[in-house]
Amino acid sequence: MIISGLVRAAYMSTQMRAAREGRETDEMRIVAMDEGESPQNIRRRVAEGTVIIARNILRENIRPLGIGKGLRIKVNANVGTSIDICDVNLEVEKARVAVKYGADTVMDLSTGGDLDEVRRAIIKAINVPVGTVPIYQAAIEAARKRGSIVHMTEDDIFNIIEKHAKDGVDFMTIHCGVTKEIVNNLARRPRLMGIVSRGGTFLAAWILHNGEENPLYKNYDYLLEMAAKYDFALSLGDGLRPGCIFDSTDYYQVQELLVIGRLVERAREYGVQAMVEGPGHIPLNHVEANVRLAKAICKDAPFYVLGPIVTDIAPGYDHIVGAIGGALAGLAGADFLCYVTPAEHLGLPSLDDVREGVIAARIAAHAADIVRLGDKAAAKDLEMARARASLDWRRQIENAIDPERAKSIRGRIKLKSPETCSMCSEYCAIKILRDSLKSHCL
Amino acid sequence: MIISGLVRAAYMSTQMRAAREGRETDEMRIVAMDEGESPQNIRRRVAEGTVIIARNILRENIRPLGIGKGLRIKVNANVGTSIDICDVNLEVEKARVAVKYGADTVMDLSTGGDLDEVRRAIIKAINVPVGTVPIYQAAIEAARKRGSIVHMTEDDIFNIIEKHAKDGVDFMTIHCGVTKEIVNNLARRPRLMGIVSRGGTFLAAWILHNGEENPLYKNYDYLLEMAAKYDFALSLGDGLRPGCIFDSTDYYQVQELLVIGRLVERAREYGVQAMVEGPGHIPLNHVEANVRLAKAICKDAPFYVLGPIVTDIAPGYDHIVGAIGGALAGLAGADFLCYVTPAEHLGLPSLDDVREGVIAARIAAHAADIVRLGDKAAAKDLEMARARASLDWRRQIENAIDPERAKSIRGRIKLKSPETCSMCSEYCAIKILRDSLKSHCL
Repeated sequence: MIISGLVRAAYMSTQMRAAREGRETDEMRIVAMDEGESPQNIRRRVAEGTVIIARNILRENIRPLGIGKGLRIKVNANVGTSIDICDVNLEVEKARVAVKYGADTVMDLSTGGDLDEVRRAIIKAINVPVGTVPIYQAAIEAARKRGSIVHMTEDDIFNIIEKHAKDGVDFMTIHCGVTKEIVNNLARRPRLMGIVSRGGTFLAAWILHNGEENPLYKNYDYLLEMAAKYDFALSLGDGLRPGCIFDSTDYYQVQELLVIGRLVERAREYGVQAMVEGPGHIPLNHVEANVRLAKAICKDAPFYVLGPIVTDIAPGYDHIVGAIGGALAGLAGADFLCYVTPAEHLGLPSLDDVREGVIAARIAAHAADIVRLGDKAAAKDLEMARARASLDWRRQIENAIDPERAKSIRGRIKLKSPETCSMCSEYCAIKILRDSLKSHCL
Repeated sequence: MIISGLVRAAYMSTQMRAAREGRETDEMRIVAMDEGESPQNIRRRVAEGTVIIARNILRENIRPLGIGKGLRIKVNANVGTSIDICDVNLEVEKARVAVKYGADTVMDLSTGGDLDEVRRAIIKAINVPVGTVPIYQAAIEAARKRGSIVHMTEDDIFNIIEKHAKDGVDFMTIHCGVTKEIVNNLARRPRLMGIVSRGGTFLAAWILHNGEENPLYKNYDYLLEMAAKYDFALSLGDGLRPGCIFDSTDYYQVQELLVIGRLVERAREYGVQAMVEGPGHIPLNHVEANVRLAKAICKDAPFYVLGPIVTDIAPGYDHIVGAIGGALAGLAGADFLCYVTPAEHLGLPSLDDVREGVIAARIAAHAADIVRLGDKAAAKDLEMARARASLDWRRQIENAIDPERAKSIRGRIKLKSPETCSMCSEYCAIKILRDSLKSHCL
């Protein structure tokens, strides 16, 4: 099931180019099988750019993953070191825990310690697509070597991107849409939370200091060439995503989205796979509008949302806030949810936070998939309903999204009526109705 | 602020009758003040039945609470003993914890031990409206005294209701809509999960055994008389709410809703306040439809939902599932969310489960209120955004929904740059953009 990219590398082609030439790759067939779709459908959607297959041709030990139109909603978990918490083994363990609890992809957002080491260790440890944000490393190394992130050069940036590509990174967040014009506008007329995207801020600071255009925007063709060479997918980052609900869907956010829409078209012309990142902090009534706007402007490119976070008051519980936004976004058409952990806005997540974050996002994705995909997605729900209707606790635990947790809550005390639970005991509605219908029918 | 009901008792009137006679009660004025509305508006909505004020005339030590049209969405927390876990002090503590974390009402759903004792202890311990489901006690006492719940008499039921009313219970869930016709239909053509409402099942079992009409439906006028006497609000229970997403919005659920719609009209004719309970397990795309259907059929009576639970696979995390459903229901017009705890479907909640459940439901309610009420609801979000924009961590913690938890996550490690957090440290987007804009403007 886990295939090598070398066969396709021999073609010197991208998934998208192959699809357009009518060729079905192994990756397309695996995605089709995993999604219960025909390979033809997957090929057609990869050709048009509404589905991407995240898989660098140099990445070994990976099960290719489809993201986009008609497919199961995917969940990403962010891991990675920081200056304060810098332990490679811990971040590798977080990546493993994330995959265990259902993350479809993992992004390494490390900013502390030996960045090459962490990335390579994570790629080696898991067999799901791995994403990165290369501008972090470019900026941090510039700060380390030259005293400030604003001293990074265009070469620094592209060298890091190629380094990540050579390590087998399957998709990269690149903030090409943070243009000089938008940053200058923002400097003149600030918004409440400014820029909350780390990559977006690095680039904005660089632009403000150097007075030059964003190198990733200016040299987009070179970026496309590199992306095609390794067939990593572009995740067009929304550097101007709102950082509070009051900045939601404002001039800057939409201006950047318009830029990104054009960049999606150019990527497609070049045969490079691209998805689009979206907000962020937006109120509930903006969620559907944001998804539909992004899908329209970006010609149905796979849409990857962060949360969304529908209220700003819940640090410590932002996984729940993100699950609310994510479910609604998924229902409206978002294809890919970036998890939010309970530690969001407060610190680097712990292992427990990673588990909670992944499960919350998986619940959101699944709730939307039930509607998007129907019976195909609801099979486990049906199993659970049947298990509950027959008071079959073993099967209820087995079908739970986190069997260990379900079992531990149920097992907190010794039950007087083991057929039921400690909530209702002998007054269990299921049991009473069943017995009552039985004697009624006799 | 906490007023006595005796003044109004002297009028021998209900809130609704007073409102219709053009009289503004103290309760209406308090609700108006709490909601930032004019007393006239509150009076008008109480008169038409689109807002209820939950407050038994005999209840002391209570801050009256408005639920319904144009008001902040309210959250209820269920507590109460069971056969397996029967500790009055623990349930009183849960009620206190629920109120501490933002529950607007508490329902005592006890089924274990001395039911009068628990109820009275909870009513005494907190100053928010308290609700009960009297059929539990009627059925359980019949089982204890006469060997089975099916041996309860009509007098048993109404005596318990009056006992609860005399104890000052402010609202009662009464399953008047579980009619003989619906139960017989269900016995002939079962649905996947049958009946999952405990009160609904008690009545269904009684109806099947005795072959008689539901006493609460048959003697609805007598119930209204009693409700008027003490001015407790009716919460018309949905005994046929779906117990899995596959039973959602089916024949039985809607048949019962039609019955309940008529009962709301009769309650209003009698000058008795009534709200309507709703599902339950329904997929995401049924949430808005269910709220709009209930609002239409029940002439905009306040709508009180349980969850809704939008997937069945997440026992252990059903507070998150319920928050997704609750936010969407609130956005569509639901007025009152019953919390769901992580222990739902597994056992009686612990103190921690109560906290998690209340906060999850509060987040859902608040996210919807931001849209429903605008600036009036979003003041704390604005404070939080400003605190984040200025890296003012003290104010961020203060404005968090659970300051203790936010503080403990932030404080896990000693920070190298105390101005930021362990996620980004010196690479904090806010800090970099601020410094960068500063030097740009110089």
